[in-house]
Amino acid sequence: MTAPQPLPTREEIVEYVRANRNWGRWGEDDELGALNLITDAKRVAATRLVRTGRSLSLARPYPRHPAPNNPTPAVMYMERFDRAPDAGGSKDYQAINYHGCTATHIDALCHTWDVDGMWNGRDPDQEITIDSARWGSIDRWKDGILTRGVLLDIPRFRGGRYVTQDTPVHGWELEAVARSQGVTIEPGDAIAVYCGREASDREGPLWTADPNNRPGLDATCLKFFREADCSTVLWDMWDIRPTPYNLPFPVHAVIFAFGVAVVDAALLEPLAAVCQGEGRYDFMLTVNPINVVGGTGCLVNPVATF
Amino acid sequence: MTAPQPLPTREEIVEYVRANRNWGRWGEDDELGALNLITDAKRVAATRLVRTGRSLSLARPYPRHPAPNNPTPAVMYMERFDRAPDAGGSKDYQAINYHGCTATHIDALCHTWDVDGMWNGRDPDQEITIDSARWGSIDRWKDGILTRGVLLDIPRFRGGRYVTQDTPVHGWELEAVARSQGVTIEPGDAIAVYCGREASDREGPLWTADPNNRPGLDATCLKFFREADCSTVLWDMWDIRPTPYNLPFPVHAVIFAFGVAVVDAALLEPLAAVCQGEGRYDFMLTVNPINVVGGTGCLVNPVATF
Amino acid sequence: MTAPQPLPTREEIVEYVRANRNWGRWGEDDELGALNLITDAKRVAATRLVRTGRSLSLARPYPRHPAPNNPTPAVMYMERFDRAPDAGGSKDYQAINYHGCTATHIDALCHTWDVDGMWNGRDPDQEITIDSARWGSIDRWKDGILTRGVLLDIPRFRGGRYVTQDTPVHGWELEAVARSQGVTIEPGDAIAVYCGREASDREGPLWTADPNNRPGLDATCLKFFREADCSTVLWDMWDIRPTPYNLPFPVHAVIFAFGVAVVDAALLEPLAAVCQGEGRYDFMLTVNPINVVGGTGCLVNPVATF
Amino acid sequence: MTAPQPLPTREEIVEYVRANRNWGRWGEDDELGALNLITDAKRVAATRLVRTGRSLSLARPYPRHPAPNNPTPAVMYMERFDRAPDAGGSKDYQAINYHGCTATHIDALCHTWDVDGMWNGRDPDQEITIDSARWGSIDRWKDGILTRGVLLDIPRFRGGRYVTQDTPVHGWELEAVARSQGVTIEPGDAIAVYCGREASDREGPLWTADPNNRPGLDATCLKFFREADCSTVLWDMWDIRPTPYNLPFPVHAVIFAFGVAVVDAALLEPLAAVCQGEGRYDFMLTVNPINVVGGTGCLVNPVATF
Repeated sequence: MTAPQPLPTREEIVEYVRANRNWGRWGEDDELGALNLITDAKRVAATRLVRTGRSLSLARPYPRHPAPNNPTPAVMYMERFDRAPDAGGSKDYQAINYHGCTATHIDALCHTWDVDGMWNGRDPDQEITIDSARWGSIDRWKDGILTRGVLLDIPRFRGGRYVTQDTPVHGWELEAVARSQGVTIEPGDAIAVYCGREASDREGPLWTADPNNRPGLDATCLKFFREADCSTVLWDMWDIRPTPYNLPFPVHAVIFAFGVAVVDAALLEPLAAVCQGEGRYDFMLTVNPINVVGGTGCLVNPVATF
Repeated sequence: MTAPQPLPTREEIVEYVRANRNWGRWGEDDELGALNLITDAKRVAATRLVRTGRSLSLARPYPRHPAPNNPTPAVMYMERFDRAPDAGGSKDYQAINYHGCTATHIDALCHTWDVDGMWNGRDPDQEITIDSARWGSIDRWKDGILTRGVLLDIPRFRGGRYVTQDTPVHGWELEAVARSQGVTIEPGDAIAVYCGREASDREGPLWTADPNNRPGLDATCLKFFREADCSTVLWDMWDIRPTPYNLPFPVHAVIFAFGVAVVDAALLEPLAAVCQGEGRYDFMLTVNPINVVGGTGCLVNPVATF
Repeated sequence: MTAPQPLPTREEIVEYVRANRNWGRWGEDDELGALNLITDAKRVAATRLVRTGRSLSLARPYPRHPAPNNPTPAVMYMERFDRAPDAGGSKDYQAINYHGCTATHIDALCHTWDVDGMWNGRDPDQEITIDSARWGSIDRWKDGILTRGVLLDIPRFRGGRYVTQDTPVHGWELEAVARSQGVTIEPGDAIAVYCGREASDREGPLWTADPNNRPGLDATCLKFFREADCSTVLWDMWDIRPTPYNLPFPVHAVIFAFGVAVVDAALLEPLAAVCQGEGRYDFMLTVNPINVVGGTGCLVNPVATF
Repeated sequence: MTAPQPLPTREEIVEYVRANRNWGRWGEDDELGALNLITDAKRVAATRLVRTGRSLSLARPYPRHPAPNNPTPAVMYMERFDRAPDAGGSKDYQAINYHGCTATHIDALCHTWDVDGMWNGRDPDQEITIDSARWGSIDRWKDGILTRGVLLDIPRFRGGRYVTQDTPVHGWELEAVARSQGVTIEPGDAIAVYCGREASDREGPLWTADPNNRPGLDATCLKFFREADCSTVLWDMWDIRPTPYNLPFPVHAVIFAFGVAVVDAALLEPLAAVCQGEGRYDFMLTVNPINVVGGTGCLVNPVATF
């Protein structure tokens, strides 16, 4: 753990975000957001991080089963068809309201907003219709995210198994974790913050079983993510609840304020093990969002390759 | 076009497939199939194909709208939630029976079988249950497909715009296309066969609007894919109908016979344009299937990077 | 067929509807609409129509299968659960976008509107939200429709099998049919207009396979339904297309103008046969809408009892 | 409360059911089950119970919202369409896995079975397929249930507000309730057993929030329902858990053993109030199941008319 530091006030956070948001940075009509930081050169460089060729998924299983933190389970149903002579096949139907705590998914830029508006200052009353999102929808990112990924392993840094309710992750701790891991974060990177959710879930209660009380990241992480100038954040736990700030989206504000792509409910425990095994905390990351025109996000399977 | 060659008989095809299928090649319990050909070294090599860093999606738009070749359209519905003070967000619900002609998706090894059984000889009556697929389901491929992709551009080779009903693609033509493009296919590659579907759809009728009459690939392509020892096939058009062979799965037999990962309804027109622009027909390909435990496939967004 | 009469102009129809709509008739806040005409006494009287006790369904089968007039098929998927010792059960999942031509369903008062507004003059921009309908939703009718039903059998009157594109049903014909059947329509009745759809579908093409050309009812039926002061309309075919009037909802205007409950895609061929067999054209009708709070309608199974 | 009586053993219950089940009673191929008891004459008589004409719904609201006893909430999503000039409409999409504790629904005869088989002795391995139920599916009842309904009001009989975990409802109590209410149950009746669920839910916890501990009916009610020779059972609470008998379906056995139509999660509190107000415990009941071919049940809205 890092030494305690005084927390900012709500007003200081709001002021910081207003002063530092990326609106207009890539033009008023930009819907790529921080993915603009992933230049062609950045992609080439990301591929050169691959040395052993080992790949692994950062996706939790498609959540079909009801659970205290899975109030609207995903649906999967089977079909079978016959095709003579003596042949056939199987099909299935999948349905999901994927935003939430159980399915690994990506949030498009239209997913959240605050009093000042959506990404780049757009008005949700104009852009979010009964039919679809007309601004910052997931299809804008259909060419995929291919960049350098960096894991920040909180439990290892702390010497524990997982983040608990009384020990939120602050922005300065993320800095310290990076330093202790000897990894330098670069613009356009995807930062994966591992909080030990799977271990926490095994010991129970399930993360966000109580939506009003759950461990996670403090709003001071906002400043860290902004200064890191990252393109993407992946996490297993996210905004702690409750917070002392009374902000609608303490850390999820990275979406509308900084244009950052957020992958919620990533599976990071196996990644942490591989990072330790490989002796490095950076890797090539690919996230290929489904081309859902007007969608607010989608299921994804982020893959790390070493 | 290549010079006409005599077609094999149904029996010759069946015999070829039986004699050359990959069952047991990677062990009786193997569920990776031809993805075994993508070794760590193959992945490393694939990343080294990236030179300019240009990425593009090979996914067609999520098919919400009814169409003659989209009899069971995908569903996407919006939600909006409020979070005081003056903040909020949007969510959506997605549902799809994705196998078919309109959505870009991947077929798991359990998707098809013939009289001899599923991949590796398993019995569909045992493995396909009302709940899920217990063998060859898509979650087995959750660590993703990262390999060398090769585009075979049929319209360019033929000097036309798209493959028509009376000019099916034969295996020997695929060989000739590769030669003419100066590209050598290697084990574990992903082969993308571009037939000009988008151009065909623009001139109409939509591909597979009539499920019994549609242009595509002849069963002689089976031998080509087997000899190429590819891991993956992507295509915009696939098995021609009708065929002279009375086979249940003329070309889709690559799934159960060879263990090949098949990406149906890929969007290849933009890829063909980029290949011409970049002056090369190979690239790094990533396909990251969703971790649907027991699923028969899933929506995917294949991404090519040059 | 009745003798041809001159058609009204668009303006005459619009003027008629404006002058005769039921807005305010049962109070400004009324959401029951013409179901107010089904008084307790009307219900008692309806039950007294039951003499032989014969019941039959007026519902078409749940439309799971794609068809030219079923662009968004209903979904039904099976589950099975085990419960030791040696016992178990089956469940299923049903999903449907039921408005359209194939599923027998009821339209709530919020289903349609024109330039003057929804039922009772409400503004759809206020009442239809991304979450639900807040005015005229189907739950307002949860206590059910129990009233006298009257069948008007067009094919029998005409001596044909079904209504065709060039012989629309006019309001004066409905009057003539009732007279010829010896049936007097009373306020609050449910009028079932049988056009012979099943016979038409058997000879093809399916009704509304071409959404722009289909046989059905002319807008002159509006006046008939208003003068009949019916509570409910059931039909197998409805608004003919094209019409000479350029009205957004030629006959479906009964919903927002008169507050009439409309049951679309009713199965009336068996009812016509029973009416002939029983020698009468009135019966007790029950329609019990599902209590979908905020819904725009629902699947129903109207049942006629003689 | 009635005086305690000794409980039967598991073997006695099994033996009673085996000796008294209705298999073969209406023929080996019968799929109507106890609805055979609703003859034409029974229907006529049911209509004559209507005296004041008052109707009310016995359906709980469509359960869209997650809750401890609603692990798979129903889905409803809105659409809006425009139709010039200045007109339009609203539609919605509904999806539900309706079996369970929250949605008012009917169980088809295929819904449950025990070691001896399904209704009429059929084998579930033959009749329940991945596609649908081929025996005892809900479409067999599409002509509806129109019969005499009888309410048995347990809280009123007991002088309490609702049935609790430690006071299960036994068969002999149902007899006593009927006697105390002065109502005679007749063959083919629909019996509505009111346990006070809504009051119990208001005081919490929600009924079946814990699936292993919930108040309800004891298996001795089986004998009562069989001797009553009822066609239909409606209830707000059903099989108590745990039971002393280790039976897979203590009271839900009425489905496969006696062929009884069961309406789960009926809303009976308003009915109890109306029965008291009207001073009678019988009424006309209509239940009109949706014509879902091969379905295991469906949502219903039972309507009582006095």
